[in-house]
Amino acid sequence: MRAVDLIKRKRDGGELQAAEVRWLIEHYTSGAVGDDQMAAFAMSVFFRGMGAGELAALVEAMMASGVTIDLSKINGIKVDKHSTGGVGDKISLCLAPLVAACGVPVPMISGRALGHTGGTLDKLSAIPGFRVDLDENKFVELVEKHQLALIGQTERLVPADRKLYALRDVTSTVESIPLIAASIMSKKLAEGIDALVLDVKVGSGAFMRSIDEARTLAKTMISIGERMDKKVRALLTDMSQVLGAACGNANEMWEAIDVLKGDGPSDVIELTVELGAEMLKLGGVAESIEDGKTRIKRAIKDGRGLEKLRRLVEAQGGDPRALDDRNVMPVAKHRESVLVDRPGVITGFKTAEIGRAAMILGAGRARSSDDVDLAVGLFMRVRTGDRVEAGRVLAELEYNDPSKLQAAKELLLSAVEIGEKAPEPYPLIRERL
Amino acid sequence: MRAVDLIKRKRDGGELQAAEVRWLIEHYTSGAVGDDQMAAFAMSVFFRGMGAGELAALVEAMMASGVTIDLSKINGIKVDKHSTGGVGDKISLCLAPLVAACGVPVPMISGRALGHTGGTLDKLSAIPGFRVDLDENKFVELVEKHQLALIGQTERLVPADRKLYALRDVTSTVESIPLIAASIMSKKLAEGIDALVLDVKVGSGAFMRSIDEARTLAKTMISIGERMDKKVRALLTDMSQVLGAACGNANEMWEAIDVLKGDGPSDVIELTVELGAEMLKLGGVAESIEDGKTRIKRAIKDGRGLEKLRRLVEAQGGDPRALDDRNVMPVAKHRESVLVDRPGVITGFKTAEIGRAAMILGAGRARSSDDVDLAVGLFMRVRTGDRVEAGRVLAELEYNDPSKLQAAKELLLSAVEIGEKAPEPYPLIRERL
Repeated sequence: MRAVDLIKRKRDGGELQAAEVRWLIEHYTSGAVGDDQMAAFAMSVFFRGMGAGELAALVEAMMASGVTIDLSKINGIKVDKHSTGGVGDKISLCLAPLVAACGVPVPMISGRALGHTGGTLDKLSAIPGFRVDLDENKFVELVEKHQLALIGQTERLVPADRKLYALRDVTSTVESIPLIAASIMSKKLAEGIDALVLDVKVGSGAFMRSIDEARTLAKTMISIGERMDKKVRALLTDMSQVLGAACGNANEMWEAIDVLKGDGPSDVIELTVELGAEMLKLGGVAESIEDGKTRIKRAIKDGRGLEKLRRLVEAQGGDPRALDDRNVMPVAKHRESVLVDRPGVITGFKTAEIGRAAMILGAGRARSSDDVDLAVGLFMRVRTGDRVEAGRVLAELEYNDPSKLQAAKELLLSAVEIGEKAPEPYPLIRERL
Repeated sequence: MRAVDLIKRKRDGGELQAAEVRWLIEHYTSGAVGDDQMAAFAMSVFFRGMGAGELAALVEAMMASGVTIDLSKINGIKVDKHSTGGVGDKISLCLAPLVAACGVPVPMISGRALGHTGGTLDKLSAIPGFRVDLDENKFVELVEKHQLALIGQTERLVPADRKLYALRDVTSTVESIPLIAASIMSKKLAEGIDALVLDVKVGSGAFMRSIDEARTLAKTMISIGERMDKKVRALLTDMSQVLGAACGNANEMWEAIDVLKGDGPSDVIELTVELGAEMLKLGGVAESIEDGKTRIKRAIKDGRGLEKLRRLVEAQGGDPRALDDRNVMPVAKHRESVLVDRPGVITGFKTAEIGRAAMILGAGRARSSDDVDLAVGLFMRVRTGDRVEAGRVLAELEYNDPSKLQAAKELLLSAVEIGEKAPEPYPLIRERL
């Protein structure tokens, strides 16, 4: 077998056999096939797509490039959630403890912030001492004991994805639906889950800007799951504005804790309840989505979700007082309000730009090697449809480095669209697949 | 500037500015842009093509990656010919001396055999002592003194092309018309020529299998030439069967010498005369194509072409007795005829397979690192339209390694199409552009 022939076949619209896909990924992981050939292959996939059989083979080959976690000795249907990434998306932080508290084990391996999107691991790291760099054995132990683990990708899990993702990042082959789907699904299936709920974001703060793209991605991931005998459900959810108010790390962690305390922004609560209900139904604990919602709401109300998070924080080395006192987590030195500069109605947001404004303040990463300042971020104080006067507070910025303020403010202001009449708002849950 | 952004623009169908193309090629040549990014860019070009401005910038940037030869101090309009490659194409070997003998300087830098196509340099190397590895100064000196030089690509000429071609070869991005055109034109324009005649081959032995593809490639190269203020003419010529009878190295060199002696196959003579006439017209020596043809025929008849080759062979260190005695060049140990296995009419050939049969015997290279046996090859003894009986000699094979014989014979037999009625034959010159 020669990589050059496989590239050519894909380039010309042909299909690869499962054994050929396996060969390619094995040899890429070992270094026998170089980055040059894999880049050409990835670009061919960008243009030609992949068939269902090819894609399943790709996911299996990527999983087989490293270890896979075996959770079969743990009772219950193990269910995880994955979000395709947005701005202010702190849902995992409140959702995972609630679902675990309701009796469904949640083995969750998350990522870090990159570009305009935040990362669950960074938000968790705002809790002093909280360790996300645990190994697979500790992960299994945590799921067994607490029905919950929240860690980062390990070196041994899906190394092919790490290598391929780094390559795609520099070769403009990130935006390929089959490659995105394979990357997500290989990592999630390597966790040892039985079922998965996908939160596919759509809108100006998401990677998928159109509902059609989001639907295609969701269907692609569902079909991969089916071929692997895993139950996968997907919600297409609105990301045309920041989810909740907080965008940053410590402030998002705190907003998620707020939700577990029965407080917090209504959209964060709604999405947590909806996704939680799907997870409880897949996990066999809820009979219906309605039953699942009731159970999640109850776990918020009686504090079981917060208690579960507290146990987990302790188990992963974190300071549980962070759940009671915001000041236990990093706090920014300065705070400044950004004011609306003209009257009208908020007609929409360039939401990715808001994520980038937070990144400029230090809350995110332009490159994966950048450092993050966990203390800084922003709070959005307006939403689509709000009628505003000039001088109204648009957002509050929390920052440490005054030299970054001006650029962040300008970007934020340019991200707000003010007109005369707001469009009909999107429902938070746009579609269920 | 970032390579990843340029790749993305090309991927999405946009155009690069000339400065961006220059930046990319400069940084690729220096190694600052890696093979992974260039492979992704090349694959994007495969799918999206290049605009005229981008392509001219690419050719200029590739030329600027190394030295360019200055022939301005030499009198006359310097004209070269380039063939896109075929099977049995020994035209340069007789054409270049004839054109030079008619008073037009021919600075010719050629390539080596690869895949099913032969290489002018290998055929020349069949003349004992003939050196093709001369430097740019010696090249200029030869053109000045003999109006002719026949050498190989030097290290200092168009290094970007060498690097890019090696990359395209392993990433299945060879078959891209703009990249083919840029590779050819950057090398030819770096020779210091004023005008160029292109022999774009079309048919089963060519890279361009359809006349439309061949026409597109020819027009692309003509448009590059126009932007560089060079006169470029193109002939689309038939490559649906072996050109002449000989396919190999010493045997092709000898067939070309035969043409210079007023002998040789009619198609080789015809194409030599046609291309020569175009070159003489571009070179300002002939008033018309007809006049040019008359001049080339006269230079054959009175032996000036052969004499020019003799002087050049001496000047480049070769043994001129090779022009008088076939046995001065390498001769194969064994000879075997391949017979037609069924009666009928020759309806066509898989001509590339005939080139591969010669390659199997040792006359060509599967990889650029392979060695070539200059003695071996084959002679085709039938042409399209011939009525044949079983047992008629189809071809004669000359070989040294008996273990290769069977595979070559089988490939050759499978490459001959015998039916009941031959199609209307293509004219040798299919189009002039």
